[in-house]
Amino acid sequence: MKELDSAAELVEYLEGFLTGARKERIREILGQRTRYITPVLEDLVDPHNSSACLRSAEACGLQDVHIIENRHAFQVKSGVSMGSAHWLTLRRYRAEIAESAEIASIRASATERCFATLREEGYIIYATTPHRSSISLPEMDLSRPAAIVFGSEKDGISAYARENADHCLQIPMYGFTESFNISVCAAITLYSLSQKLRQSEIPWQLSESQKQHIRLQWARHSLKRSDLLEANFRTIAKKRQSPGKP
Amino acid sequence: MKELDSAAELVEYLEGFLTGARKERIREILGQRTRYITPVLEDLVDPHNSSACLRSAEACGLQDVHIIENRHAFQVKSGVSMGSAHWLTLRRYRAEIAESAEIASIRASATERCFATLREEGYIIYATTPHRSSISLPEMDLSRPAAIVFGSEKDGISAYARENADHCLQIPMYGFTESFNISVCAAITLYSLSQKLRQSEIPWQLSESQKQHIRLQWARHSLKRSDLLEANFRTIAKKRQSPGKP
Repeated sequence: MKELDSAAELVEYLEGFLTGARKERIREILGQRTRYITPVLEDLVDPHNSSACLRSAEACGLQDVHIIENRHAFQVKSGVSMGSAHWLTLRRYRAEIAESAEIASIRASATERCFATLREEGYIIYATTPHRSSISLPEMDLSRPAAIVFGSEKDGISAYARENADHCLQIPMYGFTESFNISVCAAITLYSLSQKLRQSEIPWQLSESQKQHIRLQWARHSLKRSDLLEANFRTIAKKRQSPGKP
Repeated sequence: MKELDSAAELVEYLEGFLTGARKERIREILGQRTRYITPVLEDLVDPHNSSACLRSAEACGLQDVHIIENRHAFQVKSGVSMGSAHWLTLRRYRAEIAESAEIASIRASATERCFATLREEGYIIYATTPHRSSISLPEMDLSRPAAIVFGSEKDGISAYARENADHCLQIPMYGFTESFNISVCAAITLYSLSQKLRQSEIPWQLSESQKQHIRLQWARHSLKRSDLLEANFRTIAKKRQSPGKP
């Protein structure tokens, strides 16, 4: 007997408990979702900023947010994030603490692992810095998937990130102010790139299997006690596989 | 004897005390300054947001910020605004308090006076709201000077502003999140419009007399005890007008 495609069936089963309007909204938003541009938040300290960054990424239709925690644990303020984290795929990289290792090498490790993952997945890495030598945001080339690193409020991007990114990226500025607030910097960058991508010919949409995975996450979040429904689904599936047994 | 053009001479005199690098920076930034797009902050409550909005406006090269204070006094957090207020022209509209007037009419009055001023100066007024019926930011027409109203964090734009603006304006959004944080909304809007303006053929630069007025403000802010230098300038000017007197 052929194995059931249980993941696809589970999604269908759970979505059966959603209203038509909710299912339609999920379908619509999923059609706008992309992993082609992905923000990377390195060691943000202020939960207001972290939360505002998640909210901006979600509103721009970006699915993944990479979160690097070298010195600061990532914290979200729900009043600011407005629940956006539930709709995103948060990919976290924590510092590995070795008891007698040098502090500097510990600190770099989460960024290093994040960058290795991004490269494996085919991303070009951009570090946002307010230096004049960087690529200007309106000139950024989107011919390959782009990961954009935003650094901590006080210290900016880590030395490791700056040295190992493929490019530095800068928002053009015209006044005495030499930098934007970090959540503002993320919002302007993600919005601009998302708009540019959507106006391009680049195939930025998710694959069907990526979509199915996210539909499962979103259905679970949309339902109260989805765990009970899933248990019920498994009981039904078991019975169908062995219909003869009592 | 011809009256001295004392304003122009005062600017020259004060700028004589600045370093060459500072004078060059002022000249450069002034060349990028515009009043063609102007933000209007209506009743912002959180000083973090107010300050971030000033910082974004200044960094985008916008000179004026209109500040409406109906129910909430405008407050700035210097750690967030990074001193940007000193380089801007803040135009404030406070509610007029009449002892026995109706509360509702008091509350609207500052917005009303602000809108009247903006119309006199030739602005088209846009109210930012997350409603679907609005003009989408990328489609906004810049053939006339634009004032963009941002409402308070909790209640959004006032009923008066929504009803009396020429258009509603909306940032396109692609996720479940239904609105951006107010400082993020302001940053995305001001940055996008400033970029669009700078890439256009529209003459958005300041006039020479506007520039001179701002140079005076900036020279005063750049100098320690500019008041003493100005007093000295006036003494010299007086002597030049009546050279015969002891």
